Amino acid sequence: MEEVDILFKNANVYNSYFKKFFKGHLAVKNDRIVYTGAVYPEQIKAEQEIDAAGKYIIPGLIDIHMHIESSMAAPEQFADEIIKHGLTTIVSEPHEIANVFGIEGIKAMIKAGKEAAVDIFYAIPSSVPSTSSKLETTGADISVKEVAELIGEDKVICLGEVMNNEAVLSGDQSLPINKILSFLNENHPDYIIEGHIPSLVGEELAQFAARGINSDHCLQSVERLQDRIYNGVFVEIQEKSLRPEVINYIIENDVYEHLALVTDDVMADTLVEDGHLDHILRKIVEMGVSIENAIYMATYTPAKRMRLYDRGTLAPNKRADFIILDDLESFAVEEVYAEGKKVYNKEKTAAKKYNKAFPAEFYNSVAIDKLTEADLKIKHASNQEKVKCRIIEVKSESTYTEAKTAELKLENGFLDWEQSEFNLAAVISRYGSGDFARALITGSTIKRGAVATTYAHDHHNLYLIASNVEDGLKAANWVIENQGGYCVVENGEVKASLQLEVAGILTEKPLPLLAEKISKIREAMIELGYEHYNPIMSLSTNTLPVSPALKLTDKGLIDVEKMEVVSLFIDEEE
Amino acid sequence: MEEVDILFKNANVYNSYFKKFFKGHLAVKNDRIVYTGAVYPEQIKAEQEIDAAGKYIIPGLIDIHMHIESSMAAPEQFADEIIKHGLTTIVSEPHEIANVFGIEGIKAMIKAGKEAAVDIFYAIPSSVPSTSSKLETTGADISVKEVAELIGEDKVICLGEVMNNEAVLSGDQSLPINKILSFLNENHPDYIIEGHIPSLVGEELAQFAARGINSDHCLQSVERLQDRIYNGVFVEIQEKSLRPEVINYIIENDVYEHLALVTDDVMADTLVEDGHLDHILRKIVEMGVSIENAIYMATYTPAKRMRLYDRGTLAPNKRADFIILDDLESFAVEEVYAEGKKVYNKEKTAAKKYNKAFPAEFYNSVAIDKLTEADLKIKHASNQEKVKCRIIEVKSESTYTEAKTAELKLENGFLDWEQSEFNLAAVISRYGSGDFARALITGSTIKRGAVATTYAHDHHNLYLIASNVEDGLKAANWVIENQGGYCVVENGEVKASLQLEVAGILTEKPLPLLAEKISKIREAMIELGYEHYNPIMSLSTNTLPVSPALKLTDKGLIDVEKMEVVSLFIDEEE
Repeated sequence: MEEVDILFKNANVYNSYFKKFFKGHLAVKNDRIVYTGAVYPEQIKAEQEIDAAGKYIIPGLIDIHMHIESSMAAPEQFADEIIKHGLTTIVSEPHEIANVFGIEGIKAMIKAGKEAAVDIFYAIPSSVPSTSSKLETTGADISVKEVAELIGEDKVICLGEVMNNEAVLSGDQSLPINKILSFLNENHPDYIIEGHIPSLVGEELAQFAARGINSDHCLQSVERLQDRIYNGVFVEIQEKSLRPEVINYIIENDVYEHLALVTDDVMADTLVEDGHLDHILRKIVEMGVSIENAIYMATYTPAKRMRLYDRGTLAPNKRADFIILDDLESFAVEEVYAEGKKVYNKEKTAAKKYNKAFPAEFYNSVAIDKLTEADLKIKHASNQEKVKCRIIEVKSESTYTEAKTAELKLENGFLDWEQSEFNLAAVISRYGSGDFARALITGSTIKRGAVATTYAHDHHNLYLIASNVEDGLKAANWVIENQGGYCVVENGEVKASLQLEVAGILTEKPLPLLAEKISKIREAMIELGYEHYNPIMSLSTNTLPVSPALKLTDKGLIDVEKMEVVSLFIDEEE
Repeated sequence: MEEVDILFKNANVYNSYFKKFFKGHLAVKNDRIVYTGAVYPEQIKAEQEIDAAGKYIIPGLIDIHMHIESSMAAPEQFADEIIKHGLTTIVSEPHEIANVFGIEGIKAMIKAGKEAAVDIFYAIPSSVPSTSSKLETTGADISVKEVAELIGEDKVICLGEVMNNEAVLSGDQSLPINKILSFLNENHPDYIIEGHIPSLVGEELAQFAARGINSDHCLQSVERLQDRIYNGVFVEIQEKSLRPEVINYIIENDVYEHLALVTDDVMADTLVEDGHLDHILRKIVEMGVSIENAIYMATYTPAKRMRLYDRGTLAPNKRADFIILDDLESFAVEEVYAEGKKVYNKEKTAAKKYNKAFPAEFYNSVAIDKLTEADLKIKHASNQEKVKCRIIEVKSESTYTEAKTAELKLENGFLDWEQSEFNLAAVISRYGSGDFARALITGSTIKRGAVATTYAHDHHNLYLIASNVEDGLKAANWVIENQGGYCVVENGEVKASLQLEVAGILTEKPLPLLAEKISKIREAMIELGYEHYNPIMSLSTNTLPVSPALKLTDKGLIDVEKMEVVSLFIDEEE
């Protein structure tokens, strides 16, 4: 007799090889599956026998392209939420924490998530800083030296999304990304390299793939999807790619083997309301993909892509990571097992007490003195009465901004922004460099009050938008005093706030509490007149100089097209 | 402009992801492919442009379960023959050389094949000796110690076919195979472990797979095939598995992803006459599988199984290993490129001079003194007139033997085998142990003359079948003098011979010459009355105590069922 720990009887067990459910049994011994089959296993003696009574058993879900930091939750807290949605393995790309604390930040994330309910792997971020130290101050950078060190780390399994397509295509070996790629090509050929490839096709896509970058998670079209599959570029399907023509193409061409479902970025409140990878799975089934193929793309193909040979299917010798579901259509997760132990039961969730999981310095990472009125003045060295300025115009339908121009009045050599129709935008370096940039912002952004945050992509310096000095100071100083977070102020009162005490970008609060607060931040920003489907995403990317057209970092206004710091004042150049 | 080495224009290029041919172009730079596509690559400047004029380009073939030693050719010579058939990568399981020279033998094989035209990887043999030192003398054994050392070797990529199913199922930790499996499970979890699983299904198959053994290359039936796929056991399809019901099952269930074509054992003359993996590919297409799916199973799936991420498809960054074919139906290989260099051209093959590629001791590995008449006498310590003996009966349709009994006359205390209807069978240890076993053999074996060889599975001791003393001595001593080989003698003359000067099992002659000689050996054995579809395979497995029922090693007659040495004489036990 073979002694096992658990025998599930009479279940509908998903078989990944046939992509079908079979009525049968499943046995678990220690952390692995030892049997699945329609025939009752006579030679097995189970310590615990469970009559699954027709319930569905499927492999634990695997999300191979996402960012824990997008939720603003620390790893353990994040895992405790996504486990409820059937996730048992994730691969997180940690460029946010790396921008703040470099390689030490990544190591701290790995350590903080070691005992998490979900098995967490990491990508080596390939673009830290997002541009260069000329255009933004970050807490650290990730160069070949750090890449070489991280490759040896347990839990690090790939190079994360290579974003700077132009830099790669230029082949310019002085650029950090090309040094990293060359290092990998020479020393670790065929290392898994993930890509972020919004628009390349044809010859340029091939050039990109020839550097070893062979996945893409951007928005797909039929043309781009086809070209990626043709070139052996693995396609990671996130929610925005769930378009009818794309789904129909996938079904008609039976290309599931070359795709996986991923979430990329999910904010905490969206996670609580909609779910995680299960949400994408439910949606793709609604759009016509069979549940069996959807499960295949959320378990089997991601495991294969990331070379996680021990999981992704229910078969002998695979990790006992699986989900019990009552009903496939609703895909409501009842129980989750990880490494053979029950780690989640829908019926009984207990509140958990979390300890501080990061080194002391991570709770003290905002090196900025309290701001005063003088800090929010914008000086113009002249005796003019007015001056032509560049204005950042926030759009309502994307994270792009446009560059506008307008004339503002000068009052005693200072820009009178408070009385203008524009808000002050300011980015203050939190890394002790002393950089402080001031600009003007308008469009779909707030109309009243002020918002301040250290969650400002990717450098996460302190970012402030203020329609008046008093609210601006209150919001900014709240964030400074709390060593990081998000603060919305109107009429001298804090309307909503969220402390992000870890590196200024994460909190160790339980995720549901974080979700409530983020939700309130969103609402408060909308009440201040923000017009956007995701104000937090919009505001936090005003500072990201990789997408068009005019952005703001601690170094100043960035003309994204020219990749240059430009002056707030247009006169100065003429 | 991107400078590349070669641009093939206007070809029919196979795409592994869509499993289709596309009209288009393919560019090679250094050792890798940098572009494939229907659109002409405008940004490319090629040193050499080739108008492929509609020819077919497919990835080089990959055979992941085979034994170089089955051909009796040394690695470089073997590679020079199979390259003509489009093979660019093989994974060879070297238990033959390991039986003779242990870990040093495997290392010598790796070294000997380093510059070969084909990229050769090796499995760590898991069953050396095939049984135990109690039942056979080998030159060395492969235990956990050697496994641990070999895992670190470049070119070693998996554990080779785990054959002893019963031993594994017993779970008996004192058995070498279970020590090896436990060592791997603990120290290298999810290491690729190949299997040889002739008959297990259901619970026993699951138990086997639960030890991490997850492939099978044995003869398939629909039932076994289905059970293997269900359990995540990768199925390697060799020629004998190409049966209509099996092929139809594969086609109807679209399970190509879980299969690969392999050759297992191919003798030199068969290789020259029929081909190699290309032969299996042609055959499976004749039986109804599309050429596209056949190519997929001979390139894409084997590369994935063996985690050879850099090959198996034609896409940017993949190794430039490919075949040019004029015509798909005949699958006649025109040219072969490996790592971007042309390594074979059907039109121009030059004779090659080979150097000795093995250490000196490999050419001096048969430690047996010349045999004399006295050595072929079988003594019976009694004054009986006759004695009941066990007889090995060779079958004509398989490598199985049956145990028969018969009474033989005794003459002055010696068995009068020469005058009987039976042949002498003798196995003499070549490893200096002094073991010498004598027995009787009949059935589909030779009726006249004698055959001697050091190619006797798996221990490769000297094996002699003689119908008379004179021919027996001539054959055996020819092999001893030549330090290994095959020798067929009749009426005092050598009818056919083949020196296997390397370890007594391989030769460094060019393969076509080896093929001619092996063909002559076959014919000569048939002329001596051997009745079998493959006399060499039949004879060389008379000495292999892992298949039923009565075999002979240097330790004596082996009752395979009981796994015991048994006496030639039945009287002695009663």
